[in-house]
Amino acid sequence: MATKPVSHRSLLGKVRDRIDDFAASTPARFAIIIFTALVLVFTLLLGLPISNRTGDFTPLADAFFTAVSTICVTGLVTVDMANYWSPFGHAVIFIGVEIGAVGVLTLASILGLVISRRLGLRAKLMAVGDSNPLRVRRGAVAEGQAVRLGEIGGLLVTVAVSMLIIELVIALLLFPRVLSETNDFLDALWVSSSFAVMSFTNTGFVLVPNGIAPYATDVWFLSIIMISVFLGAVGFPVFFVLARNLRRPKRWSLHVKLTLVTTVILFVLGTLAFFALEFNNPRTFGSLDFGQRALQSSFLSMMTRSGGFSTFDIAELNNSSLLVGDMLMFVGGGSASTAGGIKVTTLAILFLAAFAEARGTDSMEAFDRRIPSDVLRVSVSVVLWGATTVATATILVLQLTDASLDHVLFDVISAFGTSGLSTGLTQNAPDSAQYVLAITMFMGRVGTVTLAAALAASTRRQLFRRAEERPIVG
Amino acid sequence: MATKPVSHRSLLGKVRDRIDDFAASTPARFAIIIFTALVLVFTLLLGLPISNRTGDFTPLADAFFTAVSTICVTGLVTVDMANYWSPFGHAVIFIGVEIGAVGVLTLASILGLVISRRLGLRAKLMAVGDSNPLRVRRGAVAEGQAVRLGEIGGLLVTVAVSMLIIELVIALLLFPRVLSETNDFLDALWVSSSFAVMSFTNTGFVLVPNGIAPYATDVWFLSIIMISVFLGAVGFPVFFVLARNLRRPKRWSLHVKLTLVTTVILFVLGTLAFFALEFNNPRTFGSLDFGQRALQSSFLSMMTRSGGFSTFDIAELNNSSLLVGDMLMFVGGGSASTAGGIKVTTLAILFLAAFAEARGTDSMEAFDRRIPSDVLRVSVSVVLWGATTVATATILVLQLTDASLDHVLFDVISAFGTSGLSTGLTQNAPDSAQYVLAITMFMGRVGTVTLAAALAASTRRQLFRRAEERPIVG
Ligand SMILES: [K+]
Ligand SMILES: [K+]
Repeated sequence: MATKPVSHRSLLGKVRDRIDDFAASTPARFAIIIFTALVLVFTLLLGLPISNRTGDFTPLADAFFTAVSTICVTGLVTVDMANYWSPFGHAVIFIGVEIGAVGVLTLASILGLVISRRLGLRAKLMAVGDSNPLRVRRGAVAEGQAVRLGEIGGLLVTVAVSMLIIELVIALLLFPRVLSETNDFLDALWVSSSFAVMSFTNTGFVLVPNGIAPYATDVWFLSIIMISVFLGAVGFPVFFVLARNLRRPKRWSLHVKLTLVTTVILFVLGTLAFFALEFNNPRTFGSLDFGQRALQSSFLSMMTRSGGFSTFDIAELNNSSLLVGDMLMFVGGGSASTAGGIKVTTLAILFLAAFAEARGTDSMEAFDRRIPSDVLRVSVSVVLWGATTVATATILVLQLTDASLDHVLFDVISAFGTSGLSTGLTQNAPDSAQYVLAITMFMGRVGTVTLAAALAASTRRQLFRRAEERPIVG
Repeated sequence: MATKPVSHRSLLGKVRDRIDDFAASTPARFAIIIFTALVLVFTLLLGLPISNRTGDFTPLADAFFTAVSTICVTGLVTVDMANYWSPFGHAVIFIGVEIGAVGVLTLASILGLVISRRLGLRAKLMAVGDSNPLRVRRGAVAEGQAVRLGEIGGLLVTVAVSMLIIELVIALLLFPRVLSETNDFLDALWVSSSFAVMSFTNTGFVLVPNGIAPYATDVWFLSIIMISVFLGAVGFPVFFVLARNLRRPKRWSLHVKLTLVTTVILFVLGTLAFFALEFNNPRTFGSLDFGQRALQSSFLSMMTRSGGFSTFDIAELNNSSLLVGDMLMFVGGGSASTAGGIKVTTLAILFLAAFAEARGTDSMEAFDRRIPSDVLRVSVSVVLWGATTVATATILVLQLTDASLDHVLFDVISAFGTSGLSTGLTQNAPDSAQYVLAITMFMGRVGTVTLAAALAASTRRQLFRRAEERPIVG
């Protein structure tokens, strides 16, 4: 992955050098500009009459909101996604989600893993999933090159190809079940591929008229969706390790172990909480049999990680369950993933700090590794950023809608954590509140990743004490 | 403050030695036992027919809740405090609040400042407010004695006498205004002294029939109450420094500066937020003139610190203002004070950590002092404790009452932060939810203080780098 020496002095080469320099010197700003540009392009595309089923221009608020929700793979909607857009509009959204997902994965990987350490891109990404923690350190010491666009291009291809392959597999697994439902080959192809893309990218848009309703109690369909969301939500570094070393846990890095353990704990706690709190609620799944209640609880728990699909009306959940959902969505998924939130490792670090303090040890430790203390400071920063964003947006939306905190907090955290689950508040809110939610989605998606990266980039070298490893936070 | 050598071997002496040893070896458990005992005694006293205006036994739920609210100086109620209790009951509550306040101040001081460092009690308490930060360090190195009951007695007396003096001054300042309202010397004495005690101890019980209503727009009365709440809420170490070195800020310690600056920032932000959010709400103070709106906003902001008085029905606040109140009450007041919450310095430490990370400096710094990194771990632990307690209680109360998150979260955080402001939910909730709230009050009061102390007690000695100072958190 060595950088190519720039020998040609063509105009194109100079432009490319300029972009290179800008991307390398202020990576966080570079990310923000790219995402803003994507949002503007897709707002324009979705605003065109050709994207709208009626053939009219789409109102700015709806076009803008849908564009942000698409590029940020959030899944919140202000219109009925299946019936509002034309086939062209659906294609734009479909492609937008893929671009958004690749963009998020690439940028998160670049920002979180690479620019902060000035390493070769793919080498570094692999190294995080590697068994030898010293390799990360050695790399950081030995190499010193800046990130070039050529490398970013290489990473983009790797990410995109991996993503398309797994989406294809998911679609193939869903296809037989969908075909038996629709009895129409082309329709089944569209339904299964749209669910595959919307689940693995953790978006949660429902682009087909009947939505998830025909499969709302189907064990196979829901399980595949859950696995797809899980794989998308654990994050690219973890996903790579699972793909290559699934049966060799000894080769898993600290980051992989922390992500998986925390994700599983949150999944189990969420499932138990939803199961218990909705036990007597016939409006959701309280009237179903034991097995179905377990399935529905676990599906909902996984969707807060941030899949965004729901098998029933979220607004019918008890207020207690909504709050549990708030907490789970705020945490979100894994770092460098299409999931949002403050990320599971960030939460883990906070608890590890509390455990260290309770045990009276000098530093945070997990899986026989010491975690440097600056990771805690980054985690605290990310949590403060998240809490401040959510609090500000919630206060504004409460004031703009006069709705209850139950629904406002749920939809705001869903926007921040790019979960996409909704009580219906977003769709019924006035334009002003929808703009606040759109900005919250952007802050949650781009802000959290760039904040963590910007902070990580300012990290000082630590003195060597024990074998040290750096989980990604934010 | 040298410990007396134990030469006599009488039975009383042995018992005292046993208690000494227990208090010194497991101070956190000692605190929990004392508070539990106080709650049980006051539950019994308030349950007696003589305490009840009707002459009947008071139901257990109400007696227990009022006892917890009294001993924890919280101020939440399940009954109309002015009319439910007999004069004897009022006297019990009055004395209970004083005992609770002295107990909280003493225990917080002992646990937070002394036992963790094994210092002479009053010497250490003064030292925290001292200009010379090295004195704290020198003390920690030079002295090594355990805490004896004799010392605790000395501190109790110091705290109680200081408290009574300031309460007397507050009562005298309120008296003329109250007398001009009631035209009854004895009644005015009772009203002004009850408001003085209930404000300085940050309790917020209203023991008089008309409550605060006759003074709801009175600048003098409300200002004195605000100052009284402020003095009680900044905490004993800060209060001492202000009393002795008010005009010499150079002699203020880091803890004093952090507490005052954070308290002022929260007060100003809260005032601005309430002013803006209630601007068009005639049900609270939106219909009053500019000056009154400023007064009412600032009064409400200060009461979340955790005074607990309100000049209007809290349930009439916009949902956005309720959320602002939630956030302010969760933070609460100063360490080693009668205020509750996670404490202002805990919040300050989190932000200082984020600033340090953003600036790329190796450690947290404030007012030219470096703050050791274990303080951040204690802060994170306290916040996790608070968030977990509030989340659990909120989920339970939501499930038990079917009320909205707006009101449930407000009353739960009011209980945890011992603020005492209420939307009315507590009074109307079923017994089961009232028990949950009572336990939340206890967790917020005793749990937060003992947790921080227990963690601080396990702190390792830091290597000396720069002049170091240790603010109290939790
Ligand atoms: K989503
Ligand atoms: K109070």
